[in-house]
Amino acid sequence: MDELPGSVGTSASFSLRLGQAIFSSSSLLFMSLGVEFYSYTAFCYLVTIMGLVIPWSFTLALVDGYSVLVKCPIRQPGILMIIVVGDWILSTLTLAAACSTASVVDLLLHSHGSFCPPKLCSRYRISAIMAFFSWFLSLASSLFNLWLLPSL
Amino acid sequence: MDELPGSVGTSASFSLRLGQAIFSSSSLLFMSLGVEFYSYTAFCYLVTIMGLVIPWSFTLALVDGYSVLVKCPIRQPGILMIIVVGDWILSTLTLAAACSTASVVDLLLHSHGSFCPPKLCSRYRISAIMAFFSWFLSLASSLFNLWLLPSL
Repeated sequence: MDELPGSVGTSASFSLRLGQAIFSSSSLLFMSLGVEFYSYTAFCYLVTIMGLVIPWSFTLALVDGYSVLVKCPIRQPGILMIIVVGDWILSTLTLAAACSTASVVDLLLHSHGSFCPPKLCSRYRISAIMAFFSWFLSLASSLFNLWLLPSL
Repeated sequence: MDELPGSVGTSASFSLRLGQAIFSSSSLLFMSLGVEFYSYTAFCYLVTIMGLVIPWSFTLALVDGYSVLVKCPIRQPGILMIIVVGDWILSTLTLAAACSTASVVDLLLHSHGSFCPPKLCSRYRISAIMAFFSWFLSLASSLFNLWLLPSL
């Protein structure tokens, strides 16, 4: 079986998962260190979704790290299917959260500038950007694993 | 070759495309009949994306209708690949637009109620709901065609 870089159990996949965990954690931190996030629905949604993405990415990073160390990648179609579907659902939710946050930040900055202290708003913006990065990496993982699926 | 309902050239696919065209047109109409949409970035983005989705869905509805009439479905992997990728990109963009619109409408309704006349705001909300329906149908089309792809 030839190894596809980026699929479960390779070092590329380990880097992708680590990137997801780092970006989603920093998105959560930048958002929740401000004290006003619970007054906006979109920001609460982002915090909820990031609370789902972080354990998922972290667990799969551990699985990948273990697979790389013992040189025994996962090749069961059932498990791979669960990982692909889970990744895909979480990446859709992350995209939705990132877009909502970005549009609310944009509205706060431009239309009603007085309602948003610049320090808080730039923090919200960084949080949205981090969520977009997390979405991109999660999508990449899902596509790599989907590519591997028919060859099993 | 067994027919998969929902893939290109079947009557189910024709209904899906027709639904996409109707929902995205109504989303565009509900948004742009209000006169204030260009003052919000998220609403302009929704109008742009709907302007892309409508011709795409309409063209593919025509292709499907023609295929059903002459009983000769498209089975070239290259064309099917383009349709799957195009559907997938457009559904991602539609989801992003729908989420942005929904979060901005929510913010306008709850946090700054005075800035949004109730009549306009309910129209924006209907527009966001229509965009979500359009996303769902577009995703369904993409998945049905993706399912067909490996069997060609």
